[in-house]
Amino acid sequence: MEISAVLLTLFIILVAAKIGGEIAEYFKQPAVLGELIAGVVVGVGALGLVKESDFINILAQIGAIILLFEAGVTSEYESFMKVKLWAFTVACVGVVLPFIFGYFVSHYYGLGVIESIFVGATLTATSVGITVRVFQDLGRIKSKEAQIVIGAAVVDDVIGLIILAVIIGIITSGSVSVINILRITGMAAFFLGGALIVGNVAAPTLLKFVHQMRVRGVLFVFAFAFCLIMAVASQAVGLAPIVGAFAAGLILSRTEHKEHVERQIKPVADIFVPIFFIMMGAAVNVSYFNPFNPANHSMLVFAALLFAVAVAGKLISGWAVFARVNKLMIGVGMMPRGEVGLIFAAYGLSHKIISQPLYVAILVMVILTTFVTPPILKAIIQRCPPNS
Amino acid sequence: MEISAVLLTLFIILVAAKIGGEIAEYFKQPAVLGELIAGVVVGVGALGLVKESDFINILAQIGAIILLFEAGVTSEYESFMKVKLWAFTVACVGVVLPFIFGYFVSHYYGLGVIESIFVGATLTATSVGITVRVFQDLGRIKSKEAQIVIGAAVVDDVIGLIILAVIIGIITSGSVSVINILRITGMAAFFLGGALIVGNVAAPTLLKFVHQMRVRGVLFVFAFAFCLIMAVASQAVGLAPIVGAFAAGLILSRTEHKEHVERQIKPVADIFVPIFFIMMGAAVNVSYFNPFNPANHSMLVFAALLFAVAVAGKLISGWAVFARVNKLMIGVGMMPRGEVGLIFAAYGLSHKIISQPLYVAILVMVILTTFVTPPILKAIIQRCPPNS
Repeated sequence: MEISAVLLTLFIILVAAKIGGEIAEYFKQPAVLGELIAGVVVGVGALGLVKESDFINILAQIGAIILLFEAGVTSEYESFMKVKLWAFTVACVGVVLPFIFGYFVSHYYGLGVIESIFVGATLTATSVGITVRVFQDLGRIKSKEAQIVIGAAVVDDVIGLIILAVIIGIITSGSVSVINILRITGMAAFFLGGALIVGNVAAPTLLKFVHQMRVRGVLFVFAFAFCLIMAVASQAVGLAPIVGAFAAGLILSRTEHKEHVERQIKPVADIFVPIFFIMMGAAVNVSYFNPFNPANHSMLVFAALLFAVAVAGKLISGWAVFARVNKLMIGVGMMPRGEVGLIFAAYGLSHKIISQPLYVAILVMVILTTFVTPPILKAIIQRCPPNS
Repeated sequence: MEISAVLLTLFIILVAAKIGGEIAEYFKQPAVLGELIAGVVVGVGALGLVKESDFINILAQIGAIILLFEAGVTSEYESFMKVKLWAFTVACVGVVLPFIFGYFVSHYYGLGVIESIFVGATLTATSVGITVRVFQDLGRIKSKEAQIVIGAAVVDDVIGLIILAVIIGIITSGSVSVINILRITGMAAFFLGGALIVGNVAAPTLLKFVHQMRVRGVLFVFAFAFCLIMAVASQAVGLAPIVGAFAAGLILSRTEHKEHVERQIKPVADIFVPIFFIMMGAAVNVSYFNPFNPANHSMLVFAALLFAVAVAGKLISGWAVFARVNKLMIGVGMMPRGEVGLIFAAYGLSHKIISQPLYVAILVMVILTTFVTPPILKAIIQRCPPNS
């Protein structure tokens, strides 16, 4: 790709993101909703100004990594640790219910057992980016509710890994390998536990050493490099890179350099994060939503059913917290689906487990959960005083 | 390219850059020299940790764009305009002398007329990135000398364009098209003049409008987007993208938001700029410098000759300023050669105007000017009090 084309695409993305965000805020909506819609407008489906390319897609993924890193740095480690049990229960309920609901809806709709299991699995994993941005846009990223949702999304990711392994096992060998499941769970737990324990011991010492270096920007660059290597490590054990980035941020949030890193990462996030949300919007193919195309009808009906159970399953998960928090806020925060569901669906499509219309229905469900969450979450947050 | 591989490469680049920079500063050298050498070490020629890829190369180019944007924002518009006449004379002398010297050295060495003209042309254009970084590393980016060198490099780029057009004309049609030269000069002058005039009128109004927007980071993101679009525009008229980026920075330096943009661009530059210098180092093939390989001897001798006249021609250009400035500092600041010379050389090689060993000799000359400038420039700057 030519440098000019890249620079022009970045220009369009950034301007569209900020105009979209501004319009959204004018209508008292979170900026991220405006960015998503701006993405649809400039994307392939509509104006076609922003085309997907490897370069922009990688930048978008780095945007998601920086978003979660920033969320981690902004968090309070201690308050995050306090809610970790609730995060776990929310994650479990939020995986089990959508899975069961999805299975029965699909089965009732006439799909086979394997197909129905597969559809259920695509509903399980929360895509936390949207929720993080809404909490950020409204200045509530440090609230208990936000911390529980992020924690639950991390656990979610681990469970998602296990489910995928189980399903692949069932499909390829017809059986479930307990050893394989234990291995995956062990590796993920080892990474998360290890990262937090080693990180908490090593990070302050390493930062003290880095702090003695004098070259420009060294502290911030090392903090950012730490985020990158944690993202790589988490990908290496099979988790999403954003899990590692969040853990890196969380570890740094305990050091004395928290505020410095927080201040420096902000402009970097301002540039990178919109790329993620614009590209998320740009990937939406608006023609699927055309109700005048009869070919879409049965797909849209099934997508609507999936959407209903996807929302219901996650909403209920908020009530898995027995502490004094806003349960509805947590449930809504868990609603967005994203990459993990799409990865499942793409796997199913390429292995001929699910059909093309079924794949599109899952895609539509993901898009709907993404777009409805910001306005609903904002309405709930605003009815709830900050220190509840 | 896989996301993990990209993140790992970025990690290695950032850590290597900061360690290299730190070691350089320990030995009282500018950080940029350390980054270049760190690039050689981790690059393909040595450890092979950092491989070139489209993605990283584009990020490196964006790094150069951000470097010049930052230099522009940090500049004082009025003091830059005061030295513009001197920048022009330095550029002219600094183009003419290396061209003549290069021509005669090549001709004396037995090359044909066309070949000798070509070699002369590869010596003309200054690569300003290195010099900007040294002035930045030493806190002298606002000095008259720095402003003259940057201005001369901009003019340089325009002259480089014209020379390339002339040479291509001579080679393809055997004659020089005056109309073509006027067209190119006109477009470049139109862009630079137009950008500064329109920019100075439009930017404050636009920024006042943007300032009323409330969404997070909007002012900085629009400033950055302005840099991107100016880089695209300057590329469109045939100039280097960094010329447009510098002009964008210069325009913003006149607005009331100068300090805000300066503060916000810094962490972004901290991440991107090292990629440029590490990749510059990583592109160095150390095997060319092996004196024990007889195949290198004649090439290295010619490279040494080219290096000598390349340095001499630019050094003298410093004395084209009749004001009270440090002429040696300007001359040394003009020494580094880079992309433009390499683009010329690559064109010559692919059109069979110059031979492969000649191409390598030009490459070695570029590398030498790049690596010797930082220590020499630093020594001169430190002997010269800040307000001379």
